Amino acid sequence: MYSFKNDYSEGAHPRILTTLIETNLEQEDGYGEDGYSQKAVELIKARLGRTDVDVHLLSGGTQTNLTAIAAFLRPHEAAIATASGHIFTHETGAIEATGHKVISVDTEDGKLNTEHLQGVLDYHTDEHMVKPKLVYISNSTEIGTIYKKPELKQLREFCDRNGLILFMDGARLGSALTSSENDLTLSELPGLVDAFYIGGTKNGALIGEALVICNDSLKTDFRFHIKQKGGLLAKGRVLGIQFLELFRDNLFFELANHANKMAELLKTELANANVKFLTDSPTNQIFPILPNEVISGLQNSYAFHVWEKVDKDYSAIRLVTSWATKEEQVAAFIEDYKKLAK
Amino acid sequence: MYSFKNDYSEGAHPRILTTLIETNLEQEDGYGEDGYSQKAVELIKARLGRTDVDVHLLSGGTQTNLTAIAAFLRPHEAAIATASGHIFTHETGAIEATGHKVISVDTEDGKLNTEHLQGVLDYHTDEHMVKPKLVYISNSTEIGTIYKKPELKQLREFCDRNGLILFMDGARLGSALTSSENDLTLSELPGLVDAFYIGGTKNGALIGEALVICNDSLKTDFRFHIKQKGGLLAKGRVLGIQFLELFRDNLFFELANHANKMAELLKTELANANVKFLTDSPTNQIFPILPNEVISGLQNSYAFHVWEKVDKDYSAIRLVTSWATKEEQVAAFIEDYKKLAK
Amino acid sequence: MYSFKNDYSEGAHPRILTTLIETNLEQEDGYGEDGYSQKAVELIKARLGRTDVDVHLLSGGTQTNLTAIAAFLRPHEAAIATASGHIFTHETGAIEATGHKVISVDTEDGKLNTEHLQGVLDYHTDEHMVKPKLVYISNSTEIGTIYKKPELKQLREFCDRNGLILFMDGARLGSALTSSENDLTLSELPGLVDAFYIGGTKNGALIGEALVICNDSLKTDFRFHIKQKGGLLAKGRVLGIQFLELFRDNLFFELANHANKMAELLKTELANANVKFLTDSPTNQIFPILPNEVISGLQNSYAFHVWEKVDKDYSAIRLVTSWATKEEQVAAFIEDYKKLAK
Amino acid sequence: MYSFKNDYSEGAHPRILTTLIETNLEQEDGYGEDGYSQKAVELIKARLGRTDVDVHLLSGGTQTNLTAIAAFLRPHEAAIATASGHIFTHETGAIEATGHKVISVDTEDGKLNTEHLQGVLDYHTDEHMVKPKLVYISNSTEIGTIYKKPELKQLREFCDRNGLILFMDGARLGSALTSSENDLTLSELPGLVDAFYIGGTKNGALIGEALVICNDSLKTDFRFHIKQKGGLLAKGRVLGIQFLELFRDNLFFELANHANKMAELLKTELANANVKFLTDSPTNQIFPILPNEVISGLQNSYAFHVWEKVDKDYSAIRLVTSWATKEEQVAAFIEDYKKLAK
Repeated sequence: MYSFKNDYSEGAHPRILTTLIETNLEQEDGYGEDGYSQKAVELIKARLGRTDVDVHLLSGGTQTNLTAIAAFLRPHEAAIATASGHIFTHETGAIEATGHKVISVDTEDGKLNTEHLQGVLDYHTDEHMVKPKLVYISNSTEIGTIYKKPELKQLREFCDRNGLILFMDGARLGSALTSSENDLTLSELPGLVDAFYIGGTKNGALIGEALVICNDSLKTDFRFHIKQKGGLLAKGRVLGIQFLELFRDNLFFELANHANKMAELLKTELANANVKFLTDSPTNQIFPILPNEVISGLQNSYAFHVWEKVDKDYSAIRLVTSWATKEEQVAAFIEDYKKLAK
Repeated sequence: MYSFKNDYSEGAHPRILTTLIETNLEQEDGYGEDGYSQKAVELIKARLGRTDVDVHLLSGGTQTNLTAIAAFLRPHEAAIATASGHIFTHETGAIEATGHKVISVDTEDGKLNTEHLQGVLDYHTDEHMVKPKLVYISNSTEIGTIYKKPELKQLREFCDRNGLILFMDGARLGSALTSSENDLTLSELPGLVDAFYIGGTKNGALIGEALVICNDSLKTDFRFHIKQKGGLLAKGRVLGIQFLELFRDNLFFELANHANKMAELLKTELANANVKFLTDSPTNQIFPILPNEVISGLQNSYAFHVWEKVDKDYSAIRLVTSWATKEEQVAAFIEDYKKLAK
Repeated sequence: MYSFKNDYSEGAHPRILTTLIETNLEQEDGYGEDGYSQKAVELIKARLGRTDVDVHLLSGGTQTNLTAIAAFLRPHEAAIATASGHIFTHETGAIEATGHKVISVDTEDGKLNTEHLQGVLDYHTDEHMVKPKLVYISNSTEIGTIYKKPELKQLREFCDRNGLILFMDGARLGSALTSSENDLTLSELPGLVDAFYIGGTKNGALIGEALVICNDSLKTDFRFHIKQKGGLLAKGRVLGIQFLELFRDNLFFELANHANKMAELLKTELANANVKFLTDSPTNQIFPILPNEVISGLQNSYAFHVWEKVDKDYSAIRLVTSWATKEEQVAAFIEDYKKLAK
Repeated sequence: MYSFKNDYSEGAHPRILTTLIETNLEQEDGYGEDGYSQKAVELIKARLGRTDVDVHLLSGGTQTNLTAIAAFLRPHEAAIATASGHIFTHETGAIEATGHKVISVDTEDGKLNTEHLQGVLDYHTDEHMVKPKLVYISNSTEIGTIYKKPELKQLREFCDRNGLILFMDGARLGSALTSSENDLTLSELPGLVDAFYIGGTKNGALIGEALVICNDSLKTDFRFHIKQKGGLLAKGRVLGIQFLELFRDNLFFELANHANKMAELLKTELANANVKFLTDSPTNQIFPILPNEVISGLQNSYAFHVWEKVDKDYSAIRLVTSWATKEEQVAAFIEDYKKLAK
């Protein structure tokens, strides 16, 4: 049984584990004040070409989303997200648990645009409703799509005009930035969003997301919020070492690129076999639509999520590749598909 | 510079890292549903001699405290803690951030007793005040003391009579249970408290606390709460492996025992040199009272917290030992102390 | 300018004010423990024919909704409401501010049915999502429609089968129960819902809603929650006197009946003039669809909300009648409409 | 039985009820946008001599405290109060329920001074603790004492130097400002505190507190917070009329003055009879220390709170006078006391 269920099925890239071992008995301060975390932060800032951003290392995506959003908003302010946005449906009401409504917008492609935002603003007119304040986008999105630079620029301008905070969930940012269709660089992000995070967990780290706060007004006292929400690890060194290795050279991008390549291979071969897809994803999550009996057959050898019923005979499945996906398993999957689809 | 600042200065016990590496490329399910976590849970249950408890692995102490307490209490209910209790002063209002007051009681020895609790109940008489509901104790306490079995039995009986939940913060439970003065076994805890956790981070794990819920009425839907509060790690395997190694044999207790031994060595030698202590600690945190100039001298070679001023010439310092503390460094510290104290 | 904007434009029914004055200098205990509140509670219980319910008097609808829902739910549990439900859009995120997500369902008629609920349950499958727990319905609804007895029975059975709490917002319960299409009695409600409230503010009281908790498991410590959320008025006597007068005889129903009659008059006359309505409302809120220039004309003499654009020439307006609406003003409105519509 | 239990035993000053009746059938907008509320706000601003403050009318003290404090603080920030402060013990954790810790300070006289504040700041040194941000004081205090102008100036300067918000709970502000020992005027308050409220409920209103926000940075979007917390009454006119009458002339001060006079009469007579007092109160709450058997005797004819045991023979009781307290009842109480004390 080989798994295409997600991009966190394996542990960490071996280089990270090696460094964990090599540094294991060095004594370091706790709570992110260790030398490794500090160095990781410096490497990320260097990669961004910015010294004026704050970088914090947190343990996971939900933790990062809830800590940042709760820190950024006043009690009556709300986040806006697509209905497929991770904070809207897959974080057990984590944002609401900090007191804030998440306003959802239905979209086809998992992406927010300025029309969506204008609609939300037009609807929320007075103090009987929450005040929309933070725009939550994921890149890549929960259905594999990505934001292009002009789209982000439009969102940025809209947010500037309307006093909104633009926040990017980057749990799969590596996959977005190394996508064949991407036109953005990591260093452009601080100019486009108020805060974003660089996902480690889904791109080869054992654990960890690096939150980058670009907007000065959002930086104050942020470490208090991490501690209050339970995200300040005593052995912060563990987080430091993840990002130290990912950003010491190009490992972060290489791993994401591998994941994308594996997805593209799957996509190309399936498309050649006339398979249609639920979404037009250029990243490491693809959603082929397959006959139900083919899906059953594949489930004998592969683990993956059946995403949604398309009609009575067909369903979309989700295949996720990662830094650790083996090319021979991709080939085997294709071959097995072809046998079953005959 | 050698550090006695805390018990999380180093990484993890090497055996844990070895297992991380050995299992690294196995594919596992996420969010604690991996085989390692499940096996770790089974090992802990076996060690407790109980199949009727629920065990959850979380990333850190504050995370565990806030998730458990918020899950256990209704909105108007409050926790009771000593003023030195970790949730009262050292978690940035994490419990209050989930909506609950922490009622504090001043104590000499960092331990709650039934008189304290009766006083709190007597004071909180009606709906204009919060309803005291959960008794939060730490074992070992924040100042190194431990609860003896008769003390816990009294608390248990008091809680039963008054409908209170007894919750034990076990961030340093290993050190308590292996203390020379301890009369408790791990397997007795489910009979004494409603929930407790077994601290990994401060006893040789990279990360991780194992929450044990003993009271059936507190078990329902607990995983929802972990997810909502951001504590459900995608690569839950990392937590599983920590506790798998700690409880595969006696490693958990051996590590704690080493830490205690090192603290005892320090204590004995300092006591022999007529040093007094701020608290009567039989665990891995000791608080010797030293002349200020001796403290200054020691700070040239050792890192530690200056805990509090005792009088104009003397202060108490906190020395913390761990599974990784080296006996020769303890010896060196003693020697340096003696030189300075002459 | 005469206002059909809402049902709280005037003060209170004169009898209530008279009693306020007559009782003004009697000394009473505070916080709802006064004799008037106690008598009002008894009158309501008598009217319900139930001694086994708890009745609490609160100041307003949002206060009642947020206090009850926060008291009834555990942190990971969510409310289900229609997208037009008051808690979903018109209470500034009051429910979310207590930590709970409100899951919304789009409906045509402002009413939840078991299909809606089943859909929500089917979607929320595991601990990565909130747990749907409380079904929030309004009767009459925000768009004037009402629940019939068979509909409520189906909801009740569904909730029983699925462990859900059924909560009825009765801000306009009087109007629902005296509607010409209604088949429910007040005394049947405790057998159908777990909790509901009887709206005073929109039915002739100065202030006040009477929350009735029918399900024993929801009753415990409820006064703590009222106090914590700021709803326990020091001079609770003021609330007591409202409901004392409303339920001393049939005043509550008479006032609602008058409001409905006035709405029906408007509706009948407009319908006779071939006006169409946005919703099929048998209560005191109606939504006629009028030509924009007619609306403009009416706005010279009448205040009302323009509810929504229907097409480029027509919009729906909301006309609300109340216990205080004057029949001659209704007649004048009809006449003015006819002149403008010619 | 005559009650000295509190200052909200009776209804409202008759003039308020008269105006309620006179204005009853005027149609007004809801939610505080009615003409009476607007006029009341203007009268209060005029009395303050300030057009640059925001005034909001809310229903009660706990509601006002929790709405203001939650609106003013970020999640990691805490309030500082005396241990006798209303928010610390008598509001069922209302502040904590909005996510904020209340740090308490023990005092003799119920008043915070700069030494207390400095102690709190010195203790809260880093992100492992909450950040003290708002100083909560009550004037008059919960034990009847008042703040003098130099004391407030010192607090103001301390808050300015340390970036703290100074918030005054004025539930009994009338009594403070008309105390024989008072040296403050209402119009000086905006220069001394960042926000405060003028208590109506305990000074002759049926209901209502007028929150005055002086600091511009705290004003933004405040109505959203009132609505979210359930404090925006549909018939806001009711609140408007209370303050309209209280501030149309000097009624607010006259009522408070009467309450103080009655308390002073009690105090003088008891002091002449050699009674000692628990606190040195120049306002409408006094705390005479009486023999237990005298207390029992008085309880036959008078209602009051037994405040605390002083020794085995004596206890302090609390006598509260109000705008409605009758001089002959005060005289009767004194006489009865004298008989019993013989």
